[in-house]
Amino acid sequence: MIQSARTDHARSPAAPRPSPFMLTRRDAGSAARCGRLKTAHGTIDTPTFMPVATQGTVKGVLPAQLVETGAQIVLSNAYHLSLRPGIDVVEAIGGLHRFMGWDGAILTDSGGYQVMSLAALRSITDEGVAFQSHLDGARLFLTPEAVVEGQVRLGVDILMPLDECVAHSSDPSVVSAALRRTTAWAERSARVAVGADRHLFGIVQGGLDAALRRTHAEQLAAIEFPGYAVGGLSVGEERGVTREMAAVTAAALPSDRPRYLMGVGLPQDLLRFIAMGYDLFDCVLPTRNGRNGTCFTWQGRVNLRLARHARDPEPIDSDCPCPVCRQFSRAYLRHLHGAGEMLGAQLATLHNLHFYLDLMRQARARIAAGDYADWASARADAIDDGERA
Amino acid sequence: MIQSARTDHARSPAAPRPSPFMLTRRDAGSAARCGRLKTAHGTIDTPTFMPVATQGTVKGVLPAQLVETGAQIVLSNAYHLSLRPGIDVVEAIGGLHRFMGWDGAILTDSGGYQVMSLAALRSITDEGVAFQSHLDGARLFLTPEAVVEGQVRLGVDILMPLDECVAHSSDPSVVSAALRRTTAWAERSARVAVGADRHLFGIVQGGLDAALRRTHAEQLAAIEFPGYAVGGLSVGEERGVTREMAAVTAAALPSDRPRYLMGVGLPQDLLRFIAMGYDLFDCVLPTRNGRNGTCFTWQGRVNLRLARHARDPEPIDSDCPCPVCRQFSRAYLRHLHGAGEMLGAQLATLHNLHFYLDLMRQARARIAAGDYADWASARADAIDDGERA
Repeated sequence: MIQSARTDHARSPAAPRPSPFMLTRRDAGSAARCGRLKTAHGTIDTPTFMPVATQGTVKGVLPAQLVETGAQIVLSNAYHLSLRPGIDVVEAIGGLHRFMGWDGAILTDSGGYQVMSLAALRSITDEGVAFQSHLDGARLFLTPEAVVEGQVRLGVDILMPLDECVAHSSDPSVVSAALRRTTAWAERSARVAVGADRHLFGIVQGGLDAALRRTHAEQLAAIEFPGYAVGGLSVGEERGVTREMAAVTAAALPSDRPRYLMGVGLPQDLLRFIAMGYDLFDCVLPTRNGRNGTCFTWQGRVNLRLARHARDPEPIDSDCPCPVCRQFSRAYLRHLHGAGEMLGAQLATLHNLHFYLDLMRQARARIAAGDYADWASARADAIDDGERA
Repeated sequence: MIQSARTDHARSPAAPRPSPFMLTRRDAGSAARCGRLKTAHGTIDTPTFMPVATQGTVKGVLPAQLVETGAQIVLSNAYHLSLRPGIDVVEAIGGLHRFMGWDGAILTDSGGYQVMSLAALRSITDEGVAFQSHLDGARLFLTPEAVVEGQVRLGVDILMPLDECVAHSSDPSVVSAALRRTTAWAERSARVAVGADRHLFGIVQGGLDAALRRTHAEQLAAIEFPGYAVGGLSVGEERGVTREMAAVTAAALPSDRPRYLMGVGLPQDLLRFIAMGYDLFDCVLPTRNGRNGTCFTWQGRVNLRLARHARDPEPIDSDCPCPVCRQFSRAYLRHLHGAGEMLGAQLATLHNLHFYLDLMRQARARIAAGDYADWASARADAIDDGERA
């Protein structure tokens, strides 16, 4: 672990706080670890997966159903909520937890990525970013401070700073300039008072350049955030490159802080990223694929729309203990998806979330037992083999 | 009550069976009554409402959530299921209850109405009806016997015979010919062995002609079905005419058999139909309107999409004990509907079903107390007033 940069600087203006994160176990054969992350809405057992609730709802899932999956934290998005319904609306109803009826923890992404990918006419300066809403064209201006303050008003537990995401095809000078600005914005963000119960993470960028990733991780580590996200991966590059960048970045981050790999990925990939020492994950795959009739299992993906399931009385996965697999046949699920019935999307989504959270539970158990590395490697390969079959 | 025709004929070929229906209470000031209808999947307390599960799912609702609404029976559709996924598929999985994961009772409509309204190139003879599937154009031929046998294979509890539905604008001679054929088909349907646990109802038609309605009710009563449905109403005619036809037909049916008014209606209308002595209802309104963001309350409908709800922390109905009203604000529900989030449709549907089933529970309690007539009249007027406000 490279942590030398952490104590060289004293740029963090806030008084040091006790870390909300406690490592409880380390795997014998990998960098995998178990931890507990305290929030005002429960303590999160890591490694874990955060279902995606971009607009204040995990698509098609009631909060009570989400609790049943074992999810302890969900991911929402400050950019989307600020445009619709508006942060003032959520605040008026009592904050995002109350608004969406979710008592567990909430992490919000700042929306830096969405400003870059969705908004029109954006113009970035050191001060902040000007852009037009992708919904109604309204002209808006965001500063790093306003982005943090907006998340405080939403009342969430873990906050992300505004960062500048650039395309992987960008010129190295563009990547460097974006990194410099992202670090400056991180420093400004860290000066905003968020309250003792809230945790502002740093976000490491650096494109597909290992040296830049290391440098940026060290710069952010110096700010002494209570946790670190790794952004800008799994956005189109080859899976091997994603892994390499993820490994380099994890190793460059403080080992005593939670590491969140943003927007990643397939179950077999998550098993491998856990082995690198990542603790938190989010991804749209279980929910989006569920809506399209694709389900995840330990043997690879199952496409419920295929004709071969038309008379199949078996569940998605006969070893799965989830409520969908206990009650419904592939034949029924195929019928629902074929008939365009929304219950099909709901049930496949539920199964997928149960699978992702179950994968995390099993991973934690293996780390605690000390034999994670071999188990995860065999499981990941088996899933990959299933996909090729 | 006109029941004279019942014992004049002995057209029913089956040995008389003990009625599965027992009247338990009669209202003092109206024809409303409480009853218990025995099926192989539970005893149904009447009057009650049957959520619509046309394609083997109440749209957006899990079976466990349906149980929570108090629903004891749902309505599915043999025509739709026979085209997709196919009756053989449902049979292979163990019948419709197992297929859709619903342990309560199921009534299937025969699909007579759908053959007339959805299918192409239909041609009706005394033998049956030839038509093309509205899904793939496949040429099909249905006889009254095959329609009953299909429902037996689905394994449902209450079956409907094939009937001929004609437009209300039809020439009187067309209506008469359809009635004659529907009666003949009912007699043929009644000769099919359905098993001791299943109940085949008759369906009274007769357009908007009171005399024809009475005559047809008496013809079907002579067949001694264990229950009677009333079809062909609420299909575009004025509400006053619907009420008149419903009243005439109810009075012409045997008082000791359950009466099912098909495809009707608004909550305030149901309160009035209960007063006429109807026991069973189904309607797409709670589910379809829920998907569109319209919710039912004792004060009239609430359109969740309206801007006035944007910051409203109150639930749909502050007196409603349903899980949606206990947890979610109008502001959140408006956000979900505005953002096109499927959870909005799910939650509004759930509330509406709870409301319809709660209305039936309250109606039964008032009938038992003997003061249904005044209560229902005041409640129905209050809902109508709310709609006009």
